[in-house]
Parts: sequence; C-alpha cells; structure tokens
Amino acid sequence: MYHVLESQQFDVTWLEGTFFPLAEQMAEVAKNGGNNDLHGRRMATFFFEPSTRTRMSFEVAMHMLGGRVVFSTENAQRFSSVAKGETLADTIEVVDQYFPDVIVLRHPDVGSAKIAADVSRRAHIINAGDGRGQHPTQALLDLFTIRMKFPNINGIQVAMVGDLKNGRTIRSLAYLLGKYDNVRIFFVAPPSLSVGDDIKEYLTRHRVGFSEVGDIHDIADCVHVIYQTRTQTERGGNMNGDGSRFRVDSSVLNLMALNSIIMHPMPINRSNLAETEIDPIVDDDPRAVYKRLQIGAGLSTRMALLKLLLS
Amino acid sequence: MYHVLESQQFDVTWLEGTFFPLAEQMAEVAKNGGNNDLHGRRMATFFFEPSTRTRMSFEVAMHMLGGRVVFSTENAQRFSSVAKGETLADTIEVVDQYFPDVIVLRHPDVGSAKIAADVSRRAHIINAGDGRGQHPTQALLDLFTIRMKFPNINGIQVAMVGDLKNGRTIRSLAYLLGKYDNVRIFFVAPPSLSVGDDIKEYLTRHRVGFSEVGDIHDIADCVHVIYQTRTQTERGGNMNGDGSRFRVDSSVLNLMALNSIIMHPMPINRSNLAETEIDPIVDDDPRAVYKRLQIGAGLSTRMALLKLLLS
Amino acid sequence: MYHVLESQQFDVTWLEGTFFPLAEQMAEVAKNGGNNDLHGRRMATFFFEPSTRTRMSFEVAMHMLGGRVVFSTENAQRFSSVAKGETLADTIEVVDQYFPDVIVLRHPDVGSAKIAADVSRRAHIINAGDGRGQHPTQALLDLFTIRMKFPNINGIQVAMVGDLKNGRTIRSLAYLLGKYDNVRIFFVAPPSLSVGDDIKEYLTRHRVGFSEVGDIHDIADCVHVIYQTRTQTERGGNMNGDGSRFRVDSSVLNLMALNSIIMHPMPINRSNLAETEIDPIVDDDPRAVYKRLQIGAGLSTRMALLKLLLS
Repeated sequence: MYHVLESQQFDVTWLEGTFFPLAEQMAEVAKNGGNNDLHGRRMATFFFEPSTRTRMSFEVAMHMLGGRVVFSTENAQRFSSVAKGETLADTIEVVDQYFPDVIVLRHPDVGSAKIAADVSRRAHIINAGDGRGQHPTQALLDLFTIRMKFPNINGIQVAMVGDLKNGRTIRSLAYLLGKYDNVRIFFVAPPSLSVGDDIKEYLTRHRVGFSEVGDIHDIADCVHVIYQTRTQTERGGNMNGDGSRFRVDSSVLNLMALNSIIMHPMPINRSNLAETEIDPIVDDDPRAVYKRLQIGAGLSTRMALLKLLLS
Repeated sequence: MYHVLESQQFDVTWLEGTFFPLAEQMAEVAKNGGNNDLHGRRMATFFFEPSTRTRMSFEVAMHMLGGRVVFSTENAQRFSSVAKGETLADTIEVVDQYFPDVIVLRHPDVGSAKIAADVSRRAHIINAGDGRGQHPTQALLDLFTIRMKFPNINGIQVAMVGDLKNGRTIRSLAYLLGKYDNVRIFFVAPPSLSVGDDIKEYLTRHRVGFSEVGDIHDIADCVHVIYQTRTQTERGGNMNGDGSRFRVDSSVLNLMALNSIIMHPMPINRSNLAETEIDPIVDDDPRAVYKRLQIGAGLSTRMALLKLLLS
Repeated sequence: MYHVLESQQFDVTWLEGTFFPLAEQMAEVAKNGGNNDLHGRRMATFFFEPSTRTRMSFEVAMHMLGGRVVFSTENAQRFSSVAKGETLADTIEVVDQYFPDVIVLRHPDVGSAKIAADVSRRAHIINAGDGRGQHPTQALLDLFTIRMKFPNINGIQVAMVGDLKNGRTIRSLAYLLGKYDNVRIFFVAPPSLSVGDDIKEYLTRHRVGFSEVGDIHDIADCVHVIYQTRTQTERGGNMNGDGSRFRVDSSVLNLMALNSIIMHPMPINRSNLAETEIDPIVDDDPRAVYKRLQIGAGLSTRMALLKLLLS
C-alpha cells in the first residue's frame, strides 16, 4: 500500500492483523502525549473544500508522531494556483518535488485522489474525501469505532441513514463492511437520496445482505449500529420535509437495543433544530458515540496510517 | 484560572504579584530568542473573524516558549464545519479530543468563549475576542503597557476615545482598571457610539469615577493615557462627520502632558486620512506607544499567560 | 544584502561566486532530507495574493534548514487587518516586533516590498512578487535553471513569450540577464501585451541586445531558452484570439534546437486547452524543464537565500 485512495484496497487480514492493533497502540501514544517516530517526516495538506475535523486530525496525528506539517492550505480552491487555471495533476506533480512525504488531499471532484496518485513520484497520497466519491480514512475510523464496541465485525447489522446519494462516507464504509462475513446493511433514505447502484452492485458481488428501508423506526430495534449522516445541501441534498423518518430522536432511542450505538461522521447540521438529523437530546445517551469514541478513533487511525506509510 | 474568558476574572494581587512580573521576564526571554519551557505543548487557533496581530502574537508566543501550533485557521467562519451548520459547542467538544492544550478562539458572537469553555473537558480556552463582548488578553497587554510608563496604576486617569459602543477592548480594559484604586475614566464618544450601560454600572458598583465627554480636547491636558479606538464600521460604527472631536492630531498633542501616552489596540484605519482616528504625524511623537511598547507588551503578556496556563 | 527586493541588487560576482555554488549545495541538502542550520530562526509569510508554489517552496525551504514558520497567511487581503483599513507599512512595522527573522511578502501593489523594507527594523524582507513589479527570487531560480543546462550564461539567447506587459517574472529575469555579457533577449508578445519601456531602457543602458518579435516561430530555432509565461487575465491580459503565435506546441518543438530548453514560471493555465500557452504534449519533451528542473531549482535557491540571510 503506497497511496490511500479507496476502501476497497484494504483487506480483512491487514485490517485485523496489522491496522487495528496498531491503531489501538496509537490511542495509547496519543494519551501519553505523543512520540517521535516520524521525526523528520513532512506532511502537506491541500484542502479544496471546507473541513475542520479531518484536516485537524491529520495535522495533529502528524505532530503526535513527531513529524512536521510543512504546508497547509484550507481553501486551495480559491487561493492556490488552481484559481489561475492550473490542473490538479500539474499542482501535485510540482508539489511532489518539494519533498513532502505525504500529501493529504480533499477535493470536490470524484477521482481526484487517483489523479494525484498517478503523477506523484515520491509523496504518498491520502484521499481525505473526493466529492461524492470516497473517504477511506473515515471508513477506517468508523470501522475501528464499531470494533471497539463489537470486536467481531462478522455478523454485524448496520443501518445507514439519511442522504445516501451524496454522502461519500457511507460509500467507503459499505465497501469496507463488505469485506467481512454475514454483514447486513439497511439503507434508510428517501427515494430521492437513495444509495447509489455502484454500492449495491458491489455488495451483491460480495454477497453482502442489504435492504432499502423507508423509515428508521422500522429497523431501529434490530441493528447494532445506526450510522446517521448529514444532508449534503451543498451537493443538492434535500429531505423535502420528510426528515422525521430519517432522524435519530427519542422515538428511535426507545426502539434501539441497549448495547447498540449511534454514529455520525460529523459535523451535525444544527442550524435548524426542527430539521437536524440528530436531536440534541440524543447527545447525552450513552449509545451516542459520535462525539467521543468516534472522534478519538479518528486520531488513532490516522496516526496508525501515517506510521504505516511513513516509517 | 483554567480558562481566560473575561477581564473580571483577574484580581490585583494576581496581576501585580504574579502576572506582570512574569510578563517582564517574558520580555527578556523573547529578546533572547525564546526558550523551551512549553516543549510538547500544543495550541490550536480558531479565528472566525479577520486578525493578523492577535493570531500572530499568540502563535509566536507559543513558538517562543518551545510549544507547537498544531492547527490554525484564519477564516473558520467560511471554511470550517460551521459552514455546514455545526454549532460552536459541537466544534469545540470534538476539537478538544485532538488533545490541544490550549484553544485560542476569536468569534463574532458575544459569549462564544464561555460556550467553548463549558464543553471543553481538557483544553484551556482563551477568548481572543468575542464580538462586542470582551478581549481580556488585550486588556492585560494594555494594562501592562500603562504600567511600564506608570508603575503605580492607582490614581491613573485614562481617556477612552472613539467608538465605545462596539469596541470590546475598552470594555475589557475598563473592567480591569476598575480593580485598582482612585482610577478615573473619561469616555469620549459621540452619543450614537457611547459606552454601554453594563460598563457604567460595573464602574459605579466598584466606585470607579468616570465621566462622559463630547470632545477629546476637553480632557487631553488632564489624562495620563489617551486610549484611542478604531470605528468598527463592520459592526455599524460611524462618526457621521464628527471625527475631529474624537481624533488624535497635533491639536491634541499640544494639549497633552509630556509624560502622558497615546495607546491604540491597532489596527488604525488609514484608508481615508481625512477620517483616520490618529493622524500619521502622531506616530513619531514619543508619547505614541501603540506601534512599539504596546506591541511588545502583546507578545510578553501572551507568553506569560501561556506559561501560567500550560506549565 | 539585508532585504531581497529586486533583481538589480544582485551582481555577477555574487551570483557566480557565492549564490549559485551555495544553491548547488542546497540541492544536495534537500535530497538528503535537510539539516538544522537555521535552528531557532523564524519565518512569517504574508501572501496578499493567491499562491501555492511560491509560499510552499519558501515554507519548505525554511523547514529543510531546521527553521520554523511561525505565522502564515494565505489571503491577507481579506482576512488580515488590511480589511480594517490598516496600511501595509503599519502591518509590517508591528509584525516586525514579533521577532520574525524573515518576512516573505507577496502583495498586489508595485513597490510594496520596498515599503515593507523601509519600516522593518529587524526582519529581513523578501519580495515574493509585488503586482506587476518584480519577483526577484523567481529570477534567481530561473537563472539557476538556465545555468544547470548552460553553465556559461554569457552569450545566451533567451525568448520571453506571452503576456510581457503584466508578467513580473520576465521583468526580474531580464534585469538579471542584463548583468551578463553578450546576452540577447527576444520579446515575443502581441502589441497590446508588449514588454514595458522600463525594461527596454534598462537593457539599452546595460548594452544588452534585444528585439521585439511578433511570432514565436520566427525565433524558436535560434534560442537556447524559450521562457513562456501565462496570460495574466487577473491583471487584464488577453491574447484576443492571437494565441497560436505565442504558444509552445509541436510546431515550435520541431523548430527548437535539441539542447534548448522550455521554461515557465508556473502555473500553466489549462482551463481551456485550445488557449493554453503550452500544449500538454510539450510536457513530455525532454526540453521541457518547467515541471522538473525548474521546480527543484526553486527549492534550492530559496534555501540558499535563507541561509545567506539568516545564518
């Protein structure tokens, strides 16, 4: 593994035998204030779309391991050479020669990370989200989170809820879950935001059971995980007033098993509380892991990935 | 003191016995190129409003003491998760788990630093300006500047001039001056931009003498300090052509005592020299400390604050 | 040499005897992962215009030599104190007191670097582009690139092609080439974008031969270097449909000598392939050095400059 571009490139042997054990170690390293394993290593982050969490977790992960962030841009779309008509391939080909060991890239176009990987001769490319495409490191942290509660992923039942058309995190997670046995996925979305055919075909090919469901209340009592997502209004997502069937609130909490968990890739849209995808009262429920376990998992897994790529 | 949210939280014993002596040491440390006292400590800066000076002085202060800035964003309003509808509380609650030791926050909403402090379980929060609210580290540097010229703050007479309605620095400084004895404050502003009732009530409660004055020339000869401010046009401030009564120019210089000083929190608006709050000729007067003493004080006091919080 | 403001300040003795030999050493240092020669030194970058390459190469150069970037802003125009009406001189005068050893400045106004140098009492100022003015470190890297292929600059023939009115890189390079003997420059541009009189007067005064040419094909067979530039549409540049006479494509490649080179300061505008200044097929020609040799030269020369200024 040289570049990290999509979830399909990971296999269960690597995940269970190498990656997750290392991520567990990294959680301890972070708690103890970091180490110096990546001393002398250099990261550059190129974010062509808004992000706080992802960029910060990568940059902090690098610092935690003693590496340096030698260049960082939070709105490359407007402030970089792209504004002057440069192609992404040209940008990366050039940037690669400033000796970054790893380039973390977020870009609005599907396939952009692949384009970057094709021209990079030296730097590792990490896809930190490419439009509606993938977000493979999110999938790693999501699976690591699930595994902390359910050490055996085989047989797990997961509901993915909300804007499944535009959300790249559910694509990446579905691909990753498809590597395990007896997994069952419930896709819970309005017809206009239903999950893409590419995912359904992949799951069928890998003999992963899945169903499409029109109301979260129909499956809340039988899943280990509710994976809620934000409606991607910036990509045209819209619940059309149908949000209550795709929202986690007290009525859903009442149905869920006591040892189940509620995840969310964050951020949660709370600009309008009547339409938010997770009622704030859910935050205090012990089953809600999106603000705690899942965040910590983001740091640990990114540290593990950097350590594997760079040391 | 865990968080730094407002000027009221400092008392004279701490200021005179602990903080200012340390800030004096820090001035020496900076002059000698820094030290390594905060090695391994991590700062994250979140600026939701434009800033050069404040962000830079905090980041340089951290570097000067051997710490690291692990994340920095200069326009979080547009480029962070807030653009996706996330609440500030959710942002901070999450960010706190990436192990920053201190989060420096500037935000347009009054009370935002308090919100951040309420959800942070680990990171110290420093309020670097919350809308029209407070800017307590500015008050510390302002008082440190005054103290360099007038070691005994008791009995000091200070004129605060300009847009007193929208300026948060005068609020924070007035609260801090109110801790000392026999202080007298002259508020010099047009009626539409006069100082808020909250400040006047606070001063009355603490038995601090103050007056409201309609022309800077009326008090220029009797104050130790003229504290000039910028009209906050971005918050609706407007001098309505009345600027000459609230401007420092040669006519004011001629009235001022030889050992008095002129301060300004910077930046000075010089986009229109006919309306600027400080005539450029004032810059060369030895009584003008806003470009020298006051700037150095910013670095020293922020280093002192970081050292107190983090070591 | 305290500040780096314009190409005219370098002379051949310094270039050939000091600077280029050091830049050659720096290329080795970078290849070997850097050193610690500038430990404890601090850089601040202020970019008031978009840039990826220049800002990144300076920041990486600093890291490569063990220094620190203590402050960085990628769109100072909108997010800094300038948005509040502060003058550049005031910004720099203040920033200088936060002890940066060097300030790298890009600004849209001609002469801005000079203004900064006039008020800086401590920090070295490096002009990283001042509007249509100069970009002296680009000239250094350009000349270093040429020298890698043609060790003796005396007698070199260079075609500068494209938007010569708005491009600052050709101004800086022409001034620098004018220091050598028997140099000949061909300016290839449409009348509306022809080279400025200031450059022509300078070259005449220094007895540098130059001609103005209306078609790249007329001189492609007799030059050592084609230095292609981007049409600066953001400064009003426009080829008015005449681009084919000022573009490098296969017809030009066929005319060029085998040991000649094609340079470009980057970025290349490829938002419209019919109008791009360099046809993508040129990229794979061994004579095209803009994506390889010239980029490496940018890092080496900036490292050399920082080492000379700061150690």
